[in-house]
Amino acid sequence: MLNRVRSAVAHLVSSGGAPPPRPKSPDLPNAPSPQTAAPPEAPRSPPATAGSGSAAPAKTVEARASFSRPTFLQLSPGGLRRAVDHAGRAVQSPPDTGRRLPWSTGYAEVINAGKSRHNEDQACCEVVYVEGRRSVSGAPREPSQGQGLCFYYWGLFDGHAGGGAAEMAARLLHRHIREQLKDLVEILQDPSPPPLCLPSTPGAPGSSDSSHLVGPQSCWSSQKEVTHESLVVGAIENAFQFMDEQMARERRGHQVEGGCCALVVVYLLGKVYVANAGDSRAIIVRNGEIIPMSREFTPETERQRLQLLGFLKPELLGGEFTHLEFPRRIQPKELGQRMLYRDQNMTGWAYKKIELEDLRFPLVCGEGKKARVMATIGVTRGLGDHNLKVCSSTLPIKPFLSCFPEVRVYDLTQYEHCPDDVLVLGTDGLWDVTSDCEVQSSGPSSGPGGPGHPPGPWLASPQQQAGFRG
Amino acid sequence: MLNRVRSAVAHLVSSGGAPPPRPKSPDLPNAPSPQTAAPPEAPRSPPATAGSGSAAPAKTVEARASFSRPTFLQLSPGGLRRAVDHAGRAVQSPPDTGRRLPWSTGYAEVINAGKSRHNEDQACCEVVYVEGRRSVSGAPREPSQGQGLCFYYWGLFDGHAGGGAAEMAARLLHRHIREQLKDLVEILQDPSPPPLCLPSTPGAPGSSDSSHLVGPQSCWSSQKEVTHESLVVGAIENAFQFMDEQMARERRGHQVEGGCCALVVVYLLGKVYVANAGDSRAIIVRNGEIIPMSREFTPETERQRLQLLGFLKPELLGGEFTHLEFPRRIQPKELGQRMLYRDQNMTGWAYKKIELEDLRFPLVCGEGKKARVMATIGVTRGLGDHNLKVCSSTLPIKPFLSCFPEVRVYDLTQYEHCPDDVLVLGTDGLWDVTSDCEVQSSGPSSGPGGPGHPPGPWLASPQQQAGFRG
Repeated sequence: MLNRVRSAVAHLVSSGGAPPPRPKSPDLPNAPSPQTAAPPEAPRSPPATAGSGSAAPAKTVEARASFSRPTFLQLSPGGLRRAVDHAGRAVQSPPDTGRRLPWSTGYAEVINAGKSRHNEDQACCEVVYVEGRRSVSGAPREPSQGQGLCFYYWGLFDGHAGGGAAEMAARLLHRHIREQLKDLVEILQDPSPPPLCLPSTPGAPGSSDSSHLVGPQSCWSSQKEVTHESLVVGAIENAFQFMDEQMARERRGHQVEGGCCALVVVYLLGKVYVANAGDSRAIIVRNGEIIPMSREFTPETERQRLQLLGFLKPELLGGEFTHLEFPRRIQPKELGQRMLYRDQNMTGWAYKKIELEDLRFPLVCGEGKKARVMATIGVTRGLGDHNLKVCSSTLPIKPFLSCFPEVRVYDLTQYEHCPDDVLVLGTDGLWDVTSDCEVQSSGPSSGPGGPGHPPGPWLASPQQQAGFRG
Repeated sequence: MLNRVRSAVAHLVSSGGAPPPRPKSPDLPNAPSPQTAAPPEAPRSPPATAGSGSAAPAKTVEARASFSRPTFLQLSPGGLRRAVDHAGRAVQSPPDTGRRLPWSTGYAEVINAGKSRHNEDQACCEVVYVEGRRSVSGAPREPSQGQGLCFYYWGLFDGHAGGGAAEMAARLLHRHIREQLKDLVEILQDPSPPPLCLPSTPGAPGSSDSSHLVGPQSCWSSQKEVTHESLVVGAIENAFQFMDEQMARERRGHQVEGGCCALVVVYLLGKVYVANAGDSRAIIVRNGEIIPMSREFTPETERQRLQLLGFLKPELLGGEFTHLEFPRRIQPKELGQRMLYRDQNMTGWAYKKIELEDLRFPLVCGEGKKARVMATIGVTRGLGDHNLKVCSSTLPIKPFLSCFPEVRVYDLTQYEHCPDDVLVLGTDGLWDVTSDCEVQSSGPSSGPGGPGHPPGPWLASPQQQAGFRG
């Protein structure tokens, strides 16, 4: 089964995703090694110019910040103009689904209800080659292509308050993942347990084996087992953080507007890693069964984390908010009465006497789609938002948001798949109007066919959608 | 179905658990109302004197702090002497299981492997009557017994570093729960939604209805729905907190030694509430199926909560610990090399360059039963431990421990039960050597018989146990 998947990967790499030339200038800052390998990338769609209205002011960053559609759509100049036409944004689909994109990837987006000038959502689909940074054994490295690793990558970025963060994430997040994986190229291909400690510099005396067991002076009787899988999870988690830090550094110079939810899939060595930071959702449909591959991070699902932070760091509330939750807004005339509340340790409700500071606005309020952090934002994880402030205030909201994804792993070698199986990634706009079951029954059958094949991914990126439209 | 359960409750209340006389002095401090109703309690076993060796020094608190066995065991003076005999602690069982205790409660404990002078574990089984504190409608209250509520209560307290906390919890926690429920007596018996706001004083003009909807000036479009069930959950959660605060206040005067895990079951109005703070475990066996009713809170399962606290409040680490986790102890000679680590946001592992502060001892270390917080304690929730310090240090550990339970609810009216069904509560000593399935197949069949009956609870409190012994 693993062999079949590997064959499929090899086929796709050699046909649809053949190793491209190295790009001229990698966008990642501080490339830590001169041997840094570039990712295979399809040629970028040119930035939209006709009627683009991009907010990017500086010439030097125009290529970065101006509005564009996902590169894998391979839009013609005419298609690009239609994509940014405010009056009638067209449904976009890749021109040759099933041939150029890995695993017969499909893509659909619909108009965003005029909420913003551009569609703030972005998507990305890449075959990424990772060349090892150095030999972990300390021996001089042969610069051979064959020692690298290849992963498939799909990303869906639901932007808000501007399209800059989603565009930057779509362009760079997979490169951060590649960067994090560089140390692991040899380790992941070696069936023995990963070394717990690596030498400080390439070619240093080998201290990379697992012989550094603690002596009897330590109270630890043994070392922990670390799996290859957990290294990939850690690489993806850190890549999200580095992406977010880069947005923070470059937000002034490069007009990284707003923020975005990020839902990312990495297929590497037979396993599918689904990383979600936000309220998008991924499901796998396998033989008609729905397997959730993510959960949503919202003010409601993350209430206790937010409240705990407000409780431990009250200065983040700026004297304007209370970390307590109430079932409705308290009115000043109710002072002294007893109101239901929940604090950060509670899942149930209890009554408390209303005091003056309970009249502050709650850190978390509202329900469902109307739930908000600091009355401002309805999602609690994602990238960007470094400039986001409470309305009519200078209080920053970013400290309450987390850039870290939850990563779930699906081992493709453990299951048989049929031609109708599919991996669906959708932003909240899809799932607000469509249940998992409806997606399953009406979704595309885009798998390459035959049992044992991996499910074909399907990305849906509507900001507001009236139904599942391919 | 609900009627049958209620009938059973009524029967047990009138036979085995008939309302007893009010006790002379309730142990709860600051009883907030003169109408405070006392709980029905079986007469206490006299404190053990022969060979007791109690550490309680002050005469005034001797009755509180001296060692005793669970009251529901109804031990004779001879039984009590055997219970504290260090050389051969006997398995204790209630003398008339199936008649005096609710739902045919069974109980078993075994010797604690000589780890301490006394068995530090305690248990409690009560039928508790709750009289409403006042009329929530504001109308003068008729002092009628019939308006009260009755709940069944089982508690299992796994003590450590002394038996004081477990003894205090066994004696008082259900009273704290009763205290929290007093406001809810009328509300829980009224099928309409709970009022969000109550008047400040009894007899005040009624502001207890749910008419306090926010005006259009508020950004909240509606009020949240609060269920009766979530009020009971909140009452139990707050009772744990008040119990812990009482231990903190009285720890000097009353020799509240050590701490304890607390696993508590409340049966009220057709629902079973299982509250767990610690590493004990509850399961329901229903028609041969095992339904987990708790999860364990240990340094491993709560790693990220602990690390986050250490990260946000580094002063709690006293310069002695690092919040980062490493797979093994780092040796000074490894400075500058790169070691695997996890921080509070990660579930995967990644490499980092070892810096000087990484040589500090990790906040969380070890695996499985050897996992520890600050190299000291292997459980992360419970009551007490207010004096617990890091070994050879003055650094307090309590800030990292949580007294809040996780409460799971099981609606007895939704299921049919057979005579063999049972609710098992056990400390970690049981589950370390016995799987859920083994308990299910070898456990007691103590239900009252007949479909529709609730599962008979079974409490097992071994500190170390070689098998499941009734």
